Amino acid sequence: MKKPVYQAAGLARQFGLELQGDGLTEIDHVAPLGTAGPRDLSFISSDRYAAELQSTAAGVVIVSPKLADQVKGTALVAANPHVAFARVAALFERPLDAPPGIHPTAIVAASAKVADTASIGPGCVIGEDSIIHDRAVLGPRCVIGADCVIGEDCHLVSSVTLVLRVRLGQRVLIHPGAVLGADGFGLALDGDHWIKVPQLGGVLVGDDCEIGANTTIDRGALEDTILAEDVRLDDHVHIAHNVEIGAHTVMAGCVAVAGSAKIGSYCQFGARAGAFGHLQVADHVTLTGCAVAANSVPEAGVYTSHNWPLLPTREWMRNAVRFKHLDELARRVAVLEKESKHV
Amino acid sequence: MKKPVYQAAGLARQFGLELQGDGLTEIDHVAPLGTAGPRDLSFISSDRYAAELQSTAAGVVIVSPKLADQVKGTALVAANPHVAFARVAALFERPLDAPPGIHPTAIVAASAKVADTASIGPGCVIGEDSIIHDRAVLGPRCVIGADCVIGEDCHLVSSVTLVLRVRLGQRVLIHPGAVLGADGFGLALDGDHWIKVPQLGGVLVGDDCEIGANTTIDRGALEDTILAEDVRLDDHVHIAHNVEIGAHTVMAGCVAVAGSAKIGSYCQFGARAGAFGHLQVADHVTLTGCAVAANSVPEAGVYTSHNWPLLPTREWMRNAVRFKHLDELARRVAVLEKESKHV
Amino acid sequence: MKKPVYQAAGLARQFGLELQGDGLTEIDHVAPLGTAGPRDLSFISSDRYAAELQSTAAGVVIVSPKLADQVKGTALVAANPHVAFARVAALFERPLDAPPGIHPTAIVAASAKVADTASIGPGCVIGEDSIIHDRAVLGPRCVIGADCVIGEDCHLVSSVTLVLRVRLGQRVLIHPGAVLGADGFGLALDGDHWIKVPQLGGVLVGDDCEIGANTTIDRGALEDTILAEDVRLDDHVHIAHNVEIGAHTVMAGCVAVAGSAKIGSYCQFGARAGAFGHLQVADHVTLTGCAVAANSVPEAGVYTSHNWPLLPTREWMRNAVRFKHLDELARRVAVLEKESKHV
Repeated sequence: MKKPVYQAAGLARQFGLELQGDGLTEIDHVAPLGTAGPRDLSFISSDRYAAELQSTAAGVVIVSPKLADQVKGTALVAANPHVAFARVAALFERPLDAPPGIHPTAIVAASAKVADTASIGPGCVIGEDSIIHDRAVLGPRCVIGADCVIGEDCHLVSSVTLVLRVRLGQRVLIHPGAVLGADGFGLALDGDHWIKVPQLGGVLVGDDCEIGANTTIDRGALEDTILAEDVRLDDHVHIAHNVEIGAHTVMAGCVAVAGSAKIGSYCQFGARAGAFGHLQVADHVTLTGCAVAANSVPEAGVYTSHNWPLLPTREWMRNAVRFKHLDELARRVAVLEKESKHV
Repeated sequence: MKKPVYQAAGLARQFGLELQGDGLTEIDHVAPLGTAGPRDLSFISSDRYAAELQSTAAGVVIVSPKLADQVKGTALVAANPHVAFARVAALFERPLDAPPGIHPTAIVAASAKVADTASIGPGCVIGEDSIIHDRAVLGPRCVIGADCVIGEDCHLVSSVTLVLRVRLGQRVLIHPGAVLGADGFGLALDGDHWIKVPQLGGVLVGDDCEIGANTTIDRGALEDTILAEDVRLDDHVHIAHNVEIGAHTVMAGCVAVAGSAKIGSYCQFGARAGAFGHLQVADHVTLTGCAVAANSVPEAGVYTSHNWPLLPTREWMRNAVRFKHLDELARRVAVLEKESKHV
Repeated sequence: MKKPVYQAAGLARQFGLELQGDGLTEIDHVAPLGTAGPRDLSFISSDRYAAELQSTAAGVVIVSPKLADQVKGTALVAANPHVAFARVAALFERPLDAPPGIHPTAIVAASAKVADTASIGPGCVIGEDSIIHDRAVLGPRCVIGADCVIGEDCHLVSSVTLVLRVRLGQRVLIHPGAVLGADGFGLALDGDHWIKVPQLGGVLVGDDCEIGANTTIDRGALEDTILAEDVRLDDHVHIAHNVEIGAHTVMAGCVAVAGSAKIGSYCQFGARAGAFGHLQVADHVTLTGCAVAANSVPEAGVYTSHNWPLLPTREWMRNAVRFKHLDELARRVAVLEKESKHV
C-alpha cells in the first residue's frame, strides 16, 4: 500500500486549524513526540508534556494555543489538540475494503432485506426478517439472527454475532467476537431443577455506539436491554439483560453490569469496574478501575472501591487477617475511650 | 411473523393452572405488571409487588393462591408463579428454524457420524470421529473438533467451538462464542523457558446444562473437566482444567474457577465470584457477587468477600492507606488495653 | 483411532531418561498416580506426594533421582520429572490433521502470500497484503485481516481473528475465539460527544507465545502492542493498547492489563490479577490471584492485594462497614496512646 503524503498547509485548510511555520512541511505518518521524526505528525495532549516540545524531531505538531509559541518547527494550532489529532490521524488508517454487495459465500434468508449499498462479507449468515440498511458493512463471518435491524453506516468488523431482536442505530461499530442478543440469564427453580425463563425482549443500540471485542450484551427478559446513543464499550464487557445505559457513557475493559441496572449518561467506568443489578447510577458518575457499585449512586462524582495497596504477600496476609475482627477492634477502641474519659 | 393469540381458559388447561375470572380473555404478548396492557400476560413473583396488582392493566396475571383474590381481572393461579410464567411465556418465543439435515456449506469429516434428524447449519465444521445425535441443532458456523459427542436435543446457537474430546449430554444449550475443550493452561519451566504440558483429558457436560456466550471451559490435563447435570453458566465464565461442578449449580457472569477446584451441587455464584484452584466447595454454598473462595468452603451457607462500600475517591484512599498498618493498629490497641487494666 | 503402545526402555532412549526396573513394561496411556493402572504412565511432581508411590498401580512412573528408590515398579528417572512427563505425554495427544494447502472454501486476497507448506482450513479468510509462512496451520474459520504476518509453524486452532497489522513470530499457538489487533480503546471528548482516536499501531507477538481462548490483545494507538518471546496467556485475558510484556511472562485466566503498562520478564500473574495503565512492573514479579498493581512495582517479589477472607455474609458486612471509618479509628487510637503516656 502506497503511503499518503500531506502538507501542513493542506491539513490546516482541511481541518480548520491555524498554521504556524512552514506550510510546505510534508508528513507521511504519525508518531508520539518522543520518537517522531521529520516526516511525522505528532500532538501534545497536556501541558505536563510541554518539555518534550523542546526535544522533539516531529515535522508537524498539533498543539493548543497556549503552547503554540513553544513549538520550534511547524505547528497546527487547535483548541482541542487531542480531537484535532484524532481527525487528522484518521487519514493514515488503511481504508476499509468493503465493496457494496453480497459476497457469493454469504447466506441471506428469503425474508431478509439487504440494501444495495450495504456490503455483506464472505461467510456471513443473515436470518429471517432481518434488515440491513444503506452502507452498512458486515465483515467476514458475521452471524445475524432473526428480527435484527442494522442501521445505516454500521460496521461489524468480523465474526460478530447478533442473536435475535437486536436493533442497531446508525454508525454503530462492533468489534470481532462481540455477541449481542444472547439469552439473558433467567432461571426459575422448579422443585429440584432449573427451568429456563424465556427471554422475549431484544437489544436496542443507539446511534454512534461502539462495542468492543468479545463483549456480550444479553437481550431482555420482557423488555429490551438498551444502550442510548454514543455509548462506548471496550473489550470483554458484560451487559446483562434489561440493563439501560445512558448516552455518552464509556466503559473500559472487563466491566460487568448486572441485570436491570440503570446507568446514567456521561458516566465513565474504569477497567473491571461494575454495578450490581436492580440499582440506579446517576449521570456523570465516574468509577475508578475495579470499583463496584453494590448500591445505587444518586449523585455525580468520582467514586472508588476495591482499590487496595499491593503488598508483599506476607505483609498483606498479616493485615488481611485482622479484617475478620475489625468490628471487634472498633468496639474495643470505644471501650478504651470511655475508660479514658473516666480516668 | 404473525402473532399467536391465546385464551386464558386454554392456557389454564394446557399448563394445569387454575382459572379465575373470564376464560375468554385473549392475550398475544407478555409484559411486566407495570407496563402490561389488556392483551398482555403478566405475573407476580413476590408478595412485595402485591400493590401493583391494584393498578396493572394486564389482561391476565399469573399469581400465587395467596394473592389470587387481589387480582381484579383474569388470573391463572399457580403454586409457583415464576415457574408457571416461564412455561407459558415460551409460547411467545420465535420458534427455532432448524430443518433436519446437513447444510450444503457445512463440512463433515469422513469418520464423523451425524444423525438424520440432526440439523447442521451453514458453515459448520465437524471433525474426525465426532458424533452428533438425534435432533441436535448446530446453528451457523459452529466448529466441532475431533472425538466430540453431542447428545440428543442439544442446541448450539451459533459460532460455538468444541475443540477436542468434548462430550455433551442431552438437551445442552450453548450460546455463541463459547469455547469448550481448549487446552488447559499447563506449563512446565524447562530451564529458562516454558514448555507445554499436553492436555490429554476432555470436557464432560451433563444433561440440561446451559453455557453462556463467550464462556470458556478448558479440557483436563490427564482426566476430564466435568459439569454434572443441570449446571447453568452465564456469559464470560471461565472454568479451568479439571474443575468439577456439581449438579444444579448456577454461576452468573464473569465467574472464574481455577484448576482442579471441586464445586458442590446447588451452589450459586454471583457475578464475578470465583474460586481458587485445588479446593473444595460444599453443596448449597452461595457466594455473593464478587466473592472469591481462596480456601475450601466445607459448610453450606451464604458467604461474602470483596464487597466494599463505594466511596468518594478521596475518602476511599484515606481509609485504604490505613490498611497497610491494620495489624500494627490492632497490636497498639492491645497494648492500650493492657495498660488500661493496670490503671 | 488406534491407541499407540510404548515400552519403558524405548521411552528412556527416546527422551534421554534413566530406566529403572523392567524395560519391557508397556504403557498405552497416562494417568495421575492415584488412578493409574498397570498400562498407564504417571509422574510425581513434588516430594509431598511421595506416599502415593507406595500405593500406585501405575505401570511406569517418571520420578526425580531423590525419589527413585521409592518406586516399586518401573521408573524413568529425570532431573525435572514435570518437564520429562510433558515431553513424553505429547506422544499421546491426537496428531493434528492439517494437510498443506488452502481449503477450497477459504478465501485468500489477491495480494496475500501463503507458503506452499502452510495449511489453511475451511472457511478461513485472509486479507490484503498478509503473509502466511511455512508450515503455519490455520484451523477452521480463522479471519486474518490486512497487513498481518503469521510466522513459521504457528498454529491458530480455529475461529481466531487477527484484525489488522498483527505480526506473529514462529511457533505461536492461539486458541479459539482470541482476537488480536482490534482497535485499542481510544476516545476524545469533542464537546458533548466522543470521537474515535484512530489506532494506527499493530500487535507484535514474539516466538513461542501462547494466547488463550477468547483472549483479546488490542493494537496500539501510534506504536505497537508488544509481547516478547515465550509469553503465555490463558483464557479471557485482556491486553490493552500499547502494553508491553517481557519474555517468559505468564498470565492466568481473566488477567487484565490496562493501556501502556510495561510488564517485565518472567513475571507470573495469577488468575484475575491485573495492572493499571501507564506503569512499570519489574522482572520476576509474581502477583497472586486477583492482585492488582495500581502503581509501578519496581522490585522483584511476590505481591498480593485483593485477597480477603470469605466470611458468612452477615459477618463480612459487620466488618466491612467499619472500613468507612478506618482512618478515624486509627486517629482515635493515636489520641488514646497520647493520653496513655500522660497518665
